[in-house]
Amino acid sequence: MKDQKYAATKTPEIRLVRRSPEYWRVTFDHPPLNIFGPEMLPQVNEIITAIETDERVKVVVFDSAVEGFFLIHLDFLAKLDDLAHFPPGPTGLHPWPEVLVRLSRTSVVSIALIRGRATGMGSEIALACDMRFASREKAILSQFEVGAGLVPGGGPMARLSRLMGRGRALEVILSADDVSGDLAERYGYVNRSLPDADLDRFVDALATRIASFDKQTIMDTKRLVNIASLPPDIEIESGWNACVASMGRPATQQRIKTLIERGFCKPAMQKIAWEISWDAEHR
Amino acid sequence: MKDQKYAATKTPEIRLVRRSPEYWRVTFDHPPLNIFGPEMLPQVNEIITAIETDERVKVVVFDSAVEGFFLIHLDFLAKLDDLAHFPPGPTGLHPWPEVLVRLSRTSVVSIALIRGRATGMGSEIALACDMRFASREKAILSQFEVGAGLVPGGGPMARLSRLMGRGRALEVILSADDVSGDLAERYGYVNRSLPDADLDRFVDALATRIASFDKQTIMDTKRLVNIASLPPDIEIESGWNACVASMGRPATQQRIKTLIERGFCKPAMQKIAWEISWDAEHR
Amino acid sequence: MKDQKYAATKTPEIRLVRRSPEYWRVTFDHPPLNIFGPEMLPQVNEIITAIETDERVKVVVFDSAVEGFFLIHLDFLAKLDDLAHFPPGPTGLHPWPEVLVRLSRTSVVSIALIRGRATGMGSEIALACDMRFASREKAILSQFEVGAGLVPGGGPMARLSRLMGRGRALEVILSADDVSGDLAERYGYVNRSLPDADLDRFVDALATRIASFDKQTIMDTKRLVNIASLPPDIEIESGWNACVASMGRPATQQRIKTLIERGFCKPAMQKIAWEISWDAEHR
Repeated sequence: MKDQKYAATKTPEIRLVRRSPEYWRVTFDHPPLNIFGPEMLPQVNEIITAIETDERVKVVVFDSAVEGFFLIHLDFLAKLDDLAHFPPGPTGLHPWPEVLVRLSRTSVVSIALIRGRATGMGSEIALACDMRFASREKAILSQFEVGAGLVPGGGPMARLSRLMGRGRALEVILSADDVSGDLAERYGYVNRSLPDADLDRFVDALATRIASFDKQTIMDTKRLVNIASLPPDIEIESGWNACVASMGRPATQQRIKTLIERGFCKPAMQKIAWEISWDAEHR
Repeated sequence: MKDQKYAATKTPEIRLVRRSPEYWRVTFDHPPLNIFGPEMLPQVNEIITAIETDERVKVVVFDSAVEGFFLIHLDFLAKLDDLAHFPPGPTGLHPWPEVLVRLSRTSVVSIALIRGRATGMGSEIALACDMRFASREKAILSQFEVGAGLVPGGGPMARLSRLMGRGRALEVILSADDVSGDLAERYGYVNRSLPDADLDRFVDALATRIASFDKQTIMDTKRLVNIASLPPDIEIESGWNACVASMGRPATQQRIKTLIERGFCKPAMQKIAWEISWDAEHR
Repeated sequence: MKDQKYAATKTPEIRLVRRSPEYWRVTFDHPPLNIFGPEMLPQVNEIITAIETDERVKVVVFDSAVEGFFLIHLDFLAKLDDLAHFPPGPTGLHPWPEVLVRLSRTSVVSIALIRGRATGMGSEIALACDMRFASREKAILSQFEVGAGLVPGGGPMARLSRLMGRGRALEVILSADDVSGDLAERYGYVNRSLPDADLDRFVDALATRIASFDKQTIMDTKRLVNIASLPPDIEIESGWNACVASMGRPATQQRIKTLIERGFCKPAMQKIAWEISWDAEHR
């Protein structure tokens, strides 16, 4: 465990920094797009394990070092099979839904500080955090997957439905469209959107404050909120299974191919929402 | 099935238009008040059946052709017994709660475009849709029933509680008062309220976009949102039973009679909320 | 029962006034801080019993007669043991969680009119009410307990999670910070915040309106909203048990002692949030 924990701090794409023994930061740093590739999954697993097993940490903030991107979806230029065929984690779930479930259930408080795009897996890890604060000007959230023929695999059906209600969750997921920082706050996708200039200070003050409280009290309190608010794990598992099934369908493969031809997952790509406007071809 | 499907398009009060094989519109057109009468129930049933059984349709938008009214509550000038004694639908439920349950559960995406009054049954059908978009200036939503001595019969206790939380749901239902487009958005009664001039274009673009996506992916995604967000059918059934029981009580009959004397269900009636101010007589 | 009912109206700290047989007001009047002390618990119990057993009352508004305070947390200068060792109520629960559960479940509609601070137990009683309306300028809500090393004991983990979603509930409870009237509305902590000058008139009109409706219809409607929205009682019970456990821990005793040295529970104390900034000592 100890080894894994420190290994995590050495990886280039995800950095773990201990601001204090009680307050950690996890920073996604994979320029130019902060795109999630299969090789990052073991790193996330190591960090979640470190969070679960450390005796002092109380708060972890997840943020990004890459301008314009919090963390975006799966790298479709990598082999998708690499991701789909990862060995399962300790609970038997595939490691992607598993790290998300474990992040939500750990007694440590997790906060996503969202600046830039948080799409697909980036949105899913933000949703698995306990709280989300976004830049009003610079955050863009989305679950774009349905536009690419994919069922989202990291639980947004379960989590967004409970955060923002059925109607808005269906809109966000089925429209597969960009959600601005302002709309994200109105819909409850994030706790609040703050002026970009205030965001870092606000999140740091909140994390520092919580880190000053009693760890046992935080743990007992969060556990009771979990009972009232977390989806059953089976819903996350079912979502992942539906995602894997959708990946294998020829219609989905064709959509992803077309997206890649249009520049999906390449540096020039800035606006996924536009990329998945299928209107011309598919009506 | 085929016959029923096309029969629906011939009825005068509810029109089904296929904008494309994937994208349909259902338009309430029963001037001057777009009031829901018992004779419209079989038409709604036929349309829901068509939606459920068509192999290509992905999105259905519900709107109105009548100025000032999306769809309003039951016509109390018609025989209430006609409605209460309809034979049950295939699941054994009374056909009104049953069409609402089926609309929510079908794999087709339903969107209510709300301009004018959506009260009582009009609000209930909007709530059974997957999403709701309202005119900021011209939409008025309400569940006025409690003011008339009736428990609402189409599930708003189950649905509003999950959409907007207990406190706001109790306010909307127990106050029996009008909710403006602006407040409807703040409370989560609708996804968003848009400037009236933008509403049609917005909903059409959203419906067109979703209609361009993969039907199987939409279906699998919506099914998982259903699991996370739909009330159990028994809650809708219990609400209907409580509604029928309330209809039979003398106190309710007296309230409805008084309302009708004041102009309820007649063309001049514009503001239900005012009509059910009982203060003068009942305190 | 009759005796208990009238006894409640004679107590100095909580006043029950019948505006009409159908519409009652309960006013907290315990200057200077409207702080909840153990001696008030039997008074609350009597009032809840009166509400449960009266045959005509339909609506009860809870408000305050003390400038600046709706009702605040437990008086830590009193003996905490007095509160922890109260004999259980009729259901076997400790009387504090029990009166809250009973208030939520009674068929009478309860409305909190919040002006000034509603913290700790004041927030919990407001959350047990069916609706909450706050002064935009003068209301401050909080669950400060975690900052004092305490798990909140009156159910906010269960109730806030369902009212505002997991992310915002965790922020409110774990930050232990003040929530303004404006933010309280955006988060769904209250139904609405109104300009202070409009608040009394608005709540009075709403209460009068509901009081004019049919009692049986209100009862049947609220019962169905309860099914859709109330937490299971066991969640409230577990929260109370976690609170009692946290009271006994030395770390918590030390935090409370430090708070009291800083002026906690004394008249000069205006801003709890500031009092529980532990940063200096605990990092």
